[in-house]
Amino acid sequence: MIDPWTFSSTVDYEDIMEQFGIKKFSEIIMNIKNPSLLMKRGVIFGHRDFDLIARRISENKNFIAISGMMPSGKMHIGHKMVVDQLKWYLKHGANVFISIADMEAYATRSISFKEGREIAINEYLFNYVALGLDLDKVEVYLQSQSKPLNDLAFNLSKKVNLSQMRAIYGFENSTNIAHLYAPLIQVADILLPQSELFFPNTPTVVPVGIDQDPHIRLTRDIVIRFKDEFNFIAPGSTYHRFISGLNKDKMSSSKPKTAIFLTDSLDVVEKKVKSAKTGGRESLKEQKELGGCPEKCVVYELLLYHLIKEDKKLENVYTHCKEGTLLCGECKQATADKLKELFENLAIKRDESIEIAENIL
Amino acid sequence: MIDPWTFSSTVDYEDIMEQFGIKKFSEIIMNIKNPSLLMKRGVIFGHRDFDLIARRISENKNFIAISGMMPSGKMHIGHKMVVDQLKWYLKHGANVFISIADMEAYATRSISFKEGREIAINEYLFNYVALGLDLDKVEVYLQSQSKPLNDLAFNLSKKVNLSQMRAIYGFENSTNIAHLYAPLIQVADILLPQSELFFPNTPTVVPVGIDQDPHIRLTRDIVIRFKDEFNFIAPGSTYHRFISGLNKDKMSSSKPKTAIFLTDSLDVVEKKVKSAKTGGRESLKEQKELGGCPEKCVVYELLLYHLIKEDKKLENVYTHCKEGTLLCGECKQATADKLKELFENLAIKRDESIEIAENIL
Repeated sequence: MIDPWTFSSTVDYEDIMEQFGIKKFSEIIMNIKNPSLLMKRGVIFGHRDFDLIARRISENKNFIAISGMMPSGKMHIGHKMVVDQLKWYLKHGANVFISIADMEAYATRSISFKEGREIAINEYLFNYVALGLDLDKVEVYLQSQSKPLNDLAFNLSKKVNLSQMRAIYGFENSTNIAHLYAPLIQVADILLPQSELFFPNTPTVVPVGIDQDPHIRLTRDIVIRFKDEFNFIAPGSTYHRFISGLNKDKMSSSKPKTAIFLTDSLDVVEKKVKSAKTGGRESLKEQKELGGCPEKCVVYELLLYHLIKEDKKLENVYTHCKEGTLLCGECKQATADKLKELFENLAIKRDESIEIAENIL
Repeated sequence: MIDPWTFSSTVDYEDIMEQFGIKKFSEIIMNIKNPSLLMKRGVIFGHRDFDLIARRISENKNFIAISGMMPSGKMHIGHKMVVDQLKWYLKHGANVFISIADMEAYATRSISFKEGREIAINEYLFNYVALGLDLDKVEVYLQSQSKPLNDLAFNLSKKVNLSQMRAIYGFENSTNIAHLYAPLIQVADILLPQSELFFPNTPTVVPVGIDQDPHIRLTRDIVIRFKDEFNFIAPGSTYHRFISGLNKDKMSSSKPKTAIFLTDSLDVVEKKVKSAKTGGRESLKEQKELGGCPEKCVVYELLLYHLIKEDKKLENVYTHCKEGTLLCGECKQATADKLKELFENLAIKRDESIEIAENIL
């Protein structure tokens, strides 16, 4: 059972893909015009129906890209991936929607709508802006404030029964009704952009982590059940790997020691990078002889996901690590420096970005 | 298990009162200033916390009275009871709210919001007006159109879990999620009038049939669970007997042969009254000797509930029936005549009442 609320660390992606019929992204990447770094580097590893989106892009036609954020905790470096994807989609012709899942945050984390709104602005949206996403071109909304969204959720909830919700999400008798109902709001998040209010008959992609796949499956089922009433196209999806936490577990806002938060000070950033688990050997001597293991290195992941754009430069790091000529101390310092540069840039844009974020909501 | 959707005919009221802690109305009626006919005649037989409402009335203070209608099927003579109660409450200082349960109708009967609105106006509200309820003094709303209502429902749904909903309503694994969620909207119907938007800290009464008691119990539980967040006063309630159908089963819109609809033509009304099961004996001879049984007579119920206001006159009918001097043929004709007069009056007011009803929504 994978569900969006308790999913954790060690993931066998291959196994999950097999089990739920998710296809390999590598098999369609050649059809994509200008694939993003995350696509080329295998961070985005799986998809459903992305063929359709690739075709729309190559035909210069619009499509819908949907993202959600749960306003709880703080935004960490792993979340940057979402922003990078949305920027890419926007650039390639998408109508981008961002749902702030304040109803889910209330149902599952007891965060009030008022708190949710504040967290969304002060922890997430301003960083989205600072990271370069043009929110003026994006439809951003709070779930709790959208009546059409809630109407659609209730409408769709008529054709899903308790057994189905249990089978998909593993709900127990102790599950509260708000929590039980919240996934239907997520489904409505995914389908509302295809309603008459926005872009009917437009293919949709939802970039997610594998833990969100239950929502995708439920939505695709519901589209079929309502085919006589609505002309929804089943949403496609992409799946990205989770960035590792500093200790190699999943990076998670709720475990501060695993995460580099986008609001961490430069000192803290440097310390955290230096504390990260690497693919280094037991001793310096051994590492010089055998080389390091970038495949198992949290620091290398930071470079791969976020910090080195040029493939050639990344390849150099990889090769030198493997050869034992690039040692962990030096590599950590270089990575910390790059990350600090990124964070410095975010901090400079902070005030202006918060103002933009506040005005968006 | 009693639930609002499958409840039927033969009811042991005493047993249910005992089981669920409903108190006898007869024990508090002496505290009520000008009790209504339905109260005096025992049609309203049970209550929870009505003491509080009786006190408010005697102190000339306002209180809240709430009623709901599910816009499905047609309005029958049994439904008049609700209107009579609301008129009485309005006259005695209540702020009256009427919820049109279009979300419940969608969840449980697949009636669209559009259909629900039309049924509400053309089958129910106009009759409410024609029966003399001043809707200008009443807050009437469609569940689907009230964002505060839906917000409150979602808010409250956080502290109810699946076990509790099953225990109260007997939901199965095949129950759809809209249906599962709909009772929370009913709970919000009952509590919203006590929110900051309307009349905070005001005692509330909900006049219902016993089949709606699960909603009352759930609401009272929820008030306790949210006592730290909201200042809701647990709603009181009254319970009325169901009027019998023409064949002695429960009168029900979904069984047209059991019901006299308020839009039936005068001919049909007469025919239906004459076809009703009475408390008469096997033969005329026997009836003259032994007398009839008004306690078991559908026609007598019509007189008791709706058609004879003066107690003295009703007593005469009762006595003469018991004595065997008033026979069923004569009694049915007199009853049909009274009912036709009522219906004629409704028909005259029809156009004007529909206009008022349309403007209310």
